[in-house]
Amino acid sequence: MINLKAIKSPADVKALPVSELPTLAEELRGVLLQKLSRRGGHVGPNLGFVEATVALHYIFDSPIDKIIYDVSHQSYTHKMLTGRIEGFLDPDDYSIVNGYTNPVESEHDFFTIGHTSTSISLALGLAKARDLRGEKGNIIAVIGDGSLSGGEAFEGLDNAAELGSNFIVVVNDNQMSIAENHGGIYDNLTLLRETDGKADNNYFRALGFDYIYVADGNDIATLLDTFSKVKDSAKPVVVHINTLKGKGYLPAELHKERFHYSGPFDLASGQPLHPSTGDTYESLTRDYLLGKMKSDPTAVAITSGTPGVMGFAPEYRREAGRQFIDVGIAEEHAVALASGLARGGARPFYGVYSTFLQRAYDQLSQDLAINGNPAVIGVFSGGAEGMNDVTHLGFWDIPMISNIPGIVYLLPTCREEYMAMLDWAMEQSSYPVAIRVPLGSAAPTGKSFPTDYSDLNRFAMTRKGEKVAIIGVGNFHHLAEETAELLGSRGVNATVINPRFVSGLDTEMLDSLKTMHSLVVTLEDGSVAGGFGQKVAAYYGDSASMKVKVYGLPEKFLDRYSAAGLLDECHLRADLLTGDIMAALG
Amino acid sequence: MINLKAIKSPADVKALPVSELPTLAEELRGVLLQKLSRRGGHVGPNLGFVEATVALHYIFDSPIDKIIYDVSHQSYTHKMLTGRIEGFLDPDDYSIVNGYTNPVESEHDFFTIGHTSTSISLALGLAKARDLRGEKGNIIAVIGDGSLSGGEAFEGLDNAAELGSNFIVVVNDNQMSIAENHGGIYDNLTLLRETDGKADNNYFRALGFDYIYVADGNDIATLLDTFSKVKDSAKPVVVHINTLKGKGYLPAELHKERFHYSGPFDLASGQPLHPSTGDTYESLTRDYLLGKMKSDPTAVAITSGTPGVMGFAPEYRREAGRQFIDVGIAEEHAVALASGLARGGARPFYGVYSTFLQRAYDQLSQDLAINGNPAVIGVFSGGAEGMNDVTHLGFWDIPMISNIPGIVYLLPTCREEYMAMLDWAMEQSSYPVAIRVPLGSAAPTGKSFPTDYSDLNRFAMTRKGEKVAIIGVGNFHHLAEETAELLGSRGVNATVINPRFVSGLDTEMLDSLKTMHSLVVTLEDGSVAGGFGQKVAAYYGDSASMKVKVYGLPEKFLDRYSAAGLLDECHLRADLLTGDIMAALG
Repeated sequence: MINLKAIKSPADVKALPVSELPTLAEELRGVLLQKLSRRGGHVGPNLGFVEATVALHYIFDSPIDKIIYDVSHQSYTHKMLTGRIEGFLDPDDYSIVNGYTNPVESEHDFFTIGHTSTSISLALGLAKARDLRGEKGNIIAVIGDGSLSGGEAFEGLDNAAELGSNFIVVVNDNQMSIAENHGGIYDNLTLLRETDGKADNNYFRALGFDYIYVADGNDIATLLDTFSKVKDSAKPVVVHINTLKGKGYLPAELHKERFHYSGPFDLASGQPLHPSTGDTYESLTRDYLLGKMKSDPTAVAITSGTPGVMGFAPEYRREAGRQFIDVGIAEEHAVALASGLARGGARPFYGVYSTFLQRAYDQLSQDLAINGNPAVIGVFSGGAEGMNDVTHLGFWDIPMISNIPGIVYLLPTCREEYMAMLDWAMEQSSYPVAIRVPLGSAAPTGKSFPTDYSDLNRFAMTRKGEKVAIIGVGNFHHLAEETAELLGSRGVNATVINPRFVSGLDTEMLDSLKTMHSLVVTLEDGSVAGGFGQKVAAYYGDSASMKVKVYGLPEKFLDRYSAAGLLDECHLRADLLTGDIMAALG
Repeated sequence: MINLKAIKSPADVKALPVSELPTLAEELRGVLLQKLSRRGGHVGPNLGFVEATVALHYIFDSPIDKIIYDVSHQSYTHKMLTGRIEGFLDPDDYSIVNGYTNPVESEHDFFTIGHTSTSISLALGLAKARDLRGEKGNIIAVIGDGSLSGGEAFEGLDNAAELGSNFIVVVNDNQMSIAENHGGIYDNLTLLRETDGKADNNYFRALGFDYIYVADGNDIATLLDTFSKVKDSAKPVVVHINTLKGKGYLPAELHKERFHYSGPFDLASGQPLHPSTGDTYESLTRDYLLGKMKSDPTAVAITSGTPGVMGFAPEYRREAGRQFIDVGIAEEHAVALASGLARGGARPFYGVYSTFLQRAYDQLSQDLAINGNPAVIGVFSGGAEGMNDVTHLGFWDIPMISNIPGIVYLLPTCREEYMAMLDWAMEQSSYPVAIRVPLGSAAPTGKSFPTDYSDLNRFAMTRKGEKVAIIGVGNFHHLAEETAELLGSRGVNATVINPRFVSGLDTEMLDSLKTMHSLVVTLEDGSVAGGFGQKVAAYYGDSASMKVKVYGLPEKFLDRYSAAGLLDECHLRADLLTGDIMAALG
């Protein structure tokens, strides 16, 4: 039994005899499982990398030697060994640490990281800086096999070969991305595993790296031996370690995809504590697409390594067959592929998280928009109530997409409108269309919506009033309605508008408001900077008679915020808006 | 002698006996050289790919078989063979065709392409669409060795391996990017060339492709033979052809970098007809950086395959030594690397064209801005008077960068201000800083500017007046001054402001304007959608007394526009602005 509380830094790990390291790993794993089962988190990635983390900190001298974790969702053990064990032992302290590396937490963390495939490039920058400054020390990038399909990882590997000095890439090969891997590189990894690393054809050697293979990447003794050998290596080397995702927890070993990331679960059974019930936008999207695929053999769903984003659990992927394409973590390719599919007469739907679509900004512009091909992009988790880690915010898809010419960006307000827009988008062949999938409840509203959105940038007035018009975009349309209700009780009969489109303005409707209104309020569930409201404000800029108040999310990198608190701060609450509007109306 | 005018389609090429194809190639090359020398264009890439294009069209059946050209800057011969020879024969008709593939021009062009590394993904979309639709035909992506370093190309190759049907990638290896290649993959290409394609370690095979090597990619007979073999291949195959960049024109063969893209040149000597003289922003940037490198061994200039963007011709790269890093075409990596370098205590400057920086939007956000590392990005060719091909517009860097929290985006108005901002950015260690390098003349103005910009978002009032304040951003500040002059002659003493920052507002100054002004006019050399002026308009949105008029470039994909005409259309001319302002002041 090791006193985990006494591990204040890697020096305390190094002070242990080698023979106790397996015990340390076992205890760390137990602590991890307690926290993960209560709080949720990245289960499989962390369980599989316990031994390697112990070995890294035993051999290398962090923070002189610098370990950079890709995505950094496997860095919990690293946190426990670098002075942050408190964040894992007592449930009251769980929130002390976040789920990713964080330089604010520790001098052993060098970057805030949450997107994939960046570790090699970031680490290479540290290595070049070290060389220019004449300093010493090892630079180690830890990257999972799943992240290798991302173009940025390739670019980093390709450039690293020219370094000519110490640089170590640990490839943590657990034979899984979030779901199963896709891409030719994984056949090469399989070949390397099957040949104990001896195959002539070797992706890493082809890019100029030295290469070492470790068949059991959960065996501390072997890892210690291997890391000792590459320590202070004078040139770039890949250490390819074969690990078991979910190691040491049978449900996670058996159900790797479900336990990549899990909400709180029952430790004994592995069953989720809060299983989702009823329809979700994920399941609605999946069911729609599966139906569409049956009626149209050219309908295709595309994911870039996150099939769950649109509800495609393994059994549904099997059902879709070749009409479901997982390109691996490769957002750039996914958008270009969708454009090519649409150009070739197929009907592609690419479902992607708002934050990860950022990876494909140029492809949205160049490969898709300039070419005008009718691919459909489903943007998930956009808005304040999506993911709230600083690296996963969904605040920027409105500014990003709506300022690219030629992409129609639709923001439905509820389930029925989403389904109507989705079906229109998949049936039309005139435009690239992005749809921001609503957040929150997908319960039926009973409302009905038009089936045709080809008359672009036509806003819908859902309540006709005077003095003030509230334009409630997408997720916030309900807030516009609620605010109008409250205003009604204060004697103001507000107009409410569902703009439906954020990629253009309904100038006719905006002009018509001038006669009976003196205030337009915009509410959008995204960063106001570069967003929809600012366009409305600019449109009315030279109108002396119309005031515009723009509400939305701040242009800030917030971390683990409370959504309710944030909305309050931004006055995105019906009572606060009512107060503001009454004051502005004077 | 072949009657080139009679070649109306690939069928006319196929009608020629094989023995005449070398003559055809020679004549096409002659026509190319005439046009290139008079008009300028991509010299080396086109000269090197004449034979391969002839062979492709001889063997394959375009447009049933579909050829997708990466960057498509090597597609001139393709255009000549697909009904567009007129655009190359008579100088009066040169403008009929543009410099890239263009579906509007021909059914043989499938995409508008101008950025690198996209061809494989786009072509793969066509291939999958073909399979889903049960159609036949070959899909061929043509990609240069230089483009292979881009992550999107890797992602496409990686995914293509799973296709299981016809897909042909022609790797046009001329051993050059724009400049020399950089990256480990190029050592593998060298190995493959040196072993006549027989080396065991093969990047393309590692990704799951079949592979054929052609030692002389300018020999039509061998190419015909090889393309015949892979035609109707039932699985993905790479045809790696070794070509000579600039083939058949000695100056271009000898000076590959200078002749990658050239303005008009004297055909006999190869000398440029309009050599640039005097300082340019490129040379000023280079000279500053070289000086900085001498005084600070951690100062580093980074390029992603376009060293010329900041004046680093080969002799200056040699002078900079290891302080100049060309990462190859790899914008994502370049930004992440710069962030890592800054984190490690070095002083990186990444110089990049506005349009290509789009490739790194997510890295600007995640790898750089969230981490707050003090890397400096020099944004070149942003604005109406930069490149004017639809795929190379510099309209979007203001919306893209300024809406990312935490990046300071500076827009200098002239040479002296640029140098002051550049030096401040390179000396400070608090923020990621982007600087939009001015367009046009770099002649000295004699003006002096502050050396410290750490008081963020502080605008400078360059002329104090009343009634109207004109905020002239960057390149357009001179226009604000000129308009104020004209207004003066109409009895209006306008205020003029140089905002310097577009990443935040000087609310104090904006508030102060309220007392003596009723109109604020913003002028920005970028798309108004999501830009600076809309932020100003939104800021004044609830002020009844202040009108705002926002001027800038349209949210449109324009192609080969006249800059003067565009500025007129947008009223970005002092007399037109004066008229508008007089009318608005009433």
